[in-house]
Amino acid sequence: MHETHLHHEEHLQSSDLLTDIVIGMSDGLTVPFALAAGLSGAVDSTAVIVLAGVAEIAAGSIAMGLGGFLAGKTEQDHYNSELKREYWEVDHLPEKEREEVREFFESLGLSKEVQDKAVDELVKDKDRWVAFMMKHELNLDKPDPKRARKSAFNIGMSYVVGGLVPLSPYFFIDDSVEALKISVVITLICLFVFGYFKSKVTGQPPLSGAFKVLIIGALAAAAAFGMAKLINGG
Amino acid sequence: MHETHLHHEEHLQSSDLLTDIVIGMSDGLTVPFALAAGLSGAVDSTAVIVLAGVAEIAAGSIAMGLGGFLAGKTEQDHYNSELKREYWEVDHLPEKEREEVREFFESLGLSKEVQDKAVDELVKDKDRWVAFMMKHELNLDKPDPKRARKSAFNIGMSYVVGGLVPLSPYFFIDDSVEALKISVVITLICLFVFGYFKSKVTGQPPLSGAFKVLIIGALAAAAAFGMAKLINGG
Repeated sequence: MHETHLHHEEHLQSSDLLTDIVIGMSDGLTVPFALAAGLSGAVDSTAVIVLAGVAEIAAGSIAMGLGGFLAGKTEQDHYNSELKREYWEVDHLPEKEREEVREFFESLGLSKEVQDKAVDELVKDKDRWVAFMMKHELNLDKPDPKRARKSAFNIGMSYVVGGLVPLSPYFFIDDSVEALKISVVITLICLFVFGYFKSKVTGQPPLSGAFKVLIIGALAAAAAFGMAKLINGG
Repeated sequence: MHETHLHHEEHLQSSDLLTDIVIGMSDGLTVPFALAAGLSGAVDSTAVIVLAGVAEIAAGSIAMGLGGFLAGKTEQDHYNSELKREYWEVDHLPEKEREEVREFFESLGLSKEVQDKAVDELVKDKDRWVAFMMKHELNLDKPDPKRARKSAFNIGMSYVVGGLVPLSPYFFIDDSVEALKISVVITLICLFVFGYFKSKVTGQPPLSGAFKVLIIGALAAAAAFGMAKLINGG
């Protein structure tokens, strides 16, 4: 659910696939788990919980996967339109663009003399000039066109896999409280293990990372349980 | 749900608050909507749907809000530890760090002479040197320490507000199919309006952006509805 993660993950070192799995699975383990736990506090039959859980997994995986896909497409469109605009500006407003390059070197604390020389050399090659503007003026990296589609699929599937973990006991057990007990045990173990490896991959202290992931899951489940109890009692 | 969004939003121009609202509300409008729609295809009573919807909103807002908060904390820890390391490297391995600065200027296509002059001037001020390494070697921007907490709250609350929109008819109407009809109408309108403004804020074509957001919501709801029907019939 946390769109914030990808951004941070990209700053740290991890492969794209691992990043996608981390994104999809952390929400997949957390939200369906919390939903099932919440309903267990208010509904006796596991049939309704399986129904709600599967509906949530379908909705969540599509929202995350497709949402990620379209966000990727938007990023590409944005990159391409900015690229076009920079070429246009370099052709039609070269003095303004030269000045922007000079300001960059000025911001690094270089002397006027070195600023001017660096600008003269950099603007000799138009493609390199535009690439420089894209990266250092606009802070844009070239997006990989295939990435959006792959990423959507990986995130969506990881959400499904993660979501089936907490839901699995409800498929086999009729009593919701009994199913909840098993679901809590296996999901908290999975959240801990997942948090451990997630932290390893992103270069964070793994034990504290594992506890953070576990606590988010437990708090979300407790809140859902409490809200469902409240509504059912009222 | 899509952690990918924040990353893209940050490339485009929008205030932090708007970014948070976009993140929280796009998922809040989509997933509880799809869950309620899915359950409406399989359950007659709206009481269960309200229960599941509220449990989902509680779970989703905590997972998104707290998840975002901890991701922000992790980013700060990462930034601070890298900053410390860069100061250490500048003190203990100055030649290696000088070479990295030179490689940066080389990558811009500058001549050897200008590279060397630029390096000499840049490394005169140690703080500026470290700031340069953080930004251009590691691609890290200084995170705002207050931001993580505010962002968590904004995202979580936007999720709650967004989620209450599709759920509201179920509070007042007993028949789930009747409630679903109203929920579909008001949520699709809200998704469209939301998608329109989201695209405006992020500098995208607003009409196509509005349709994208609407289609994600509709597909997620249709998938949830189909899965719930399938399970209920089997």
